Amino acid sequence: MDNIVYGRNAVFELLSSSPEKVEKLYFQFNTSHPRLKELLITAKRLRIPVGKARLEKLGEIAGTTKHQGVCALMSSISYYRLDEILDAPRNSHPLLVVLPGLNDPHNVGAILRTAEAVASDGVVLVEGKGSPVSAAVHKASAGALSHIRVSKVRSLAGTLRYLKEKGFQLVAADMDAETNYTDVDFTLPTVLVMGSEGGGLPPGALDECGMRVRIPIAGCVESLNVSVSAGVLLYEAMRQRLG
Amino acid sequence: MDNIVYGRNAVFELLSSSPEKVEKLYFQFNTSHPRLKELLITAKRLRIPVGKARLEKLGEIAGTTKHQGVCALMSSISYYRLDEILDAPRNSHPLLVVLPGLNDPHNVGAILRTAEAVASDGVVLVEGKGSPVSAAVHKASAGALSHIRVSKVRSLAGTLRYLKEKGFQLVAADMDAETNYTDVDFTLPTVLVMGSEGGGLPPGALDECGMRVRIPIAGCVESLNVSVSAGVLLYEAMRQRLG
Repeated sequence: MDNIVYGRNAVFELLSSSPEKVEKLYFQFNTSHPRLKELLITAKRLRIPVGKARLEKLGEIAGTTKHQGVCALMSSISYYRLDEILDAPRNSHPLLVVLPGLNDPHNVGAILRTAEAVASDGVVLVEGKGSPVSAAVHKASAGALSHIRVSKVRSLAGTLRYLKEKGFQLVAADMDAETNYTDVDFTLPTVLVMGSEGGGLPPGALDECGMRVRIPIAGCVESLNVSVSAGVLLYEAMRQRLG
Repeated sequence: MDNIVYGRNAVFELLSSSPEKVEKLYFQFNTSHPRLKELLITAKRLRIPVGKARLEKLGEIAGTTKHQGVCALMSSISYYRLDEILDAPRNSHPLLVVLPGLNDPHNVGAILRTAEAVASDGVVLVEGKGSPVSAAVHKASAGALSHIRVSKVRSLAGTLRYLKEKGFQLVAADMDAETNYTDVDFTLPTVLVMGSEGGGLPPGALDECGMRVRIPIAGCVESLNVSVSAGVLLYEAMRQRLG
C-alpha cells in the first residue's frame, strides 16, 4: 500500500514532522514495548485515531511483517485550510457541509460524492472524530475526492462559531427539529451540519446552529440513512438555487 | 443462523416445495458430486442466485461442517403478490419503487428504509437479479423490512407493462435523460424504476418507461450513489404530495 508507513522510528518521525498527514495509527495488541507506549501517548495528544490489531491483521495492513508493532495510515488527500476554501469560493453564496463524526466509510464517501455533485464549496471534517479518509471512503466517493475540497478542523464548536461570524447560516439536520427542511432558505450562504449515524450531533454543536431542520418521515422508520439525508438536503438546496 | 438450510436432501426438498422462499444457494468450490450438479441445474432453472464458497467459508455460512457441499439462504421476509399491494394501497395515488438489479446490500437496505420513510406502497424486486434480502440488507434497512411491502416478480418488462395498464406513470432514473426530476408530476400514481449501480436499466425496461428523468449534476462526478438518488427522487415526490 502506498499510503502506509510502518516501523517505530518511521512512525515517530512522521508524528513529529507531519502529524496532519496521518489518518490513523494501528498498534499491535498486547505489546508493552516502551517506544510503542510513547507513540500511543503522542497519538492521543495529537488526537489521531488509534486502532489495535492482532499480529496477523497488522501484517496485512502494513503489507509486511516488519512493522515492529505499529503502522500509520497516511492521508491520501491534501487537506485545505478552511480559510483557503472561504477565500476562493465556488459559489457566490457558498454552501459547506460539516461532518463531525461519521463512522461508516460508505456514508462518508457517498456524502463527499453528493457534496461534489451539487458543486458545494467544501466539506469539513473534525480531527480525531469519525472514519479516516480510507480506501473505502475513496471508493464510495466515486472520484469526488479528486475535486471536492476537504478541510479538517480541531474544534467543531469553534469552527461553527467562526463560520457564523463569517455570515453563514448554520443548518443542523436534527430528527427532533420542528422546522421542515423545505422551509429553509438555502439560497443564503449555508453550512449544513450532519450528525453521526444514530448519535446525531453533540449538544454543544447543536446549540451553535441557528436552525435545526428535520426531514419528515411518513412511514414506520425513525430516520433515514445519513447519506440519504444529506442527499435530500443538498438537493433541496440545489433545487432552490437553480430556480 | 435461523434462515439457513443445509444438506443436499434438505435443500433439494426445499427447492421442490418452496423455491420462492430461497434467496440464494451456496455451493462448495470444486466438487463434482452428481446430486450437487443436479441442484445447480435446478437452481438455474428456478432463477435462484448461486454462489460458490471454499470449504471453510461454506462452513461459516452454514454454521456447521455438516453441509454436504450446499446450503440455502432462506428469505426472512414474506413477499407480497403485486396484486395484493395494488388491491390494498396505502396512498390514494400509489407510489411504488422497482429495483431490478441492485447488488450492494447497503444500497438495497437504504432504499427500503427511504421507501418506508415516505410511506410508499411497496418495493418490487426481480427474481434472480441483484442482492438477496440478506442480513446485511435487513441491517441497512433499519427495521423498514417489518413495514414496507416487498414483492418479487419474474419478468421486469412484463411487470412494467402491467403497471402501465393499471394507470401508473413509469418514471425511470436515467443519467442521460433530458427531463429534470423536479419537472415530473409525482402526485400521479407513480412507479419509480431505479437501475443498478453503474449499469443502469436494461434497454428493454427503459423502453417501457414513459418518462426518463435525471438528477442534475453541477460538479465533477458522473452520478450519485443509487440510494442517494432514490432518496432525492422519493423526497421530491413527498414534497409535491405534501403540497
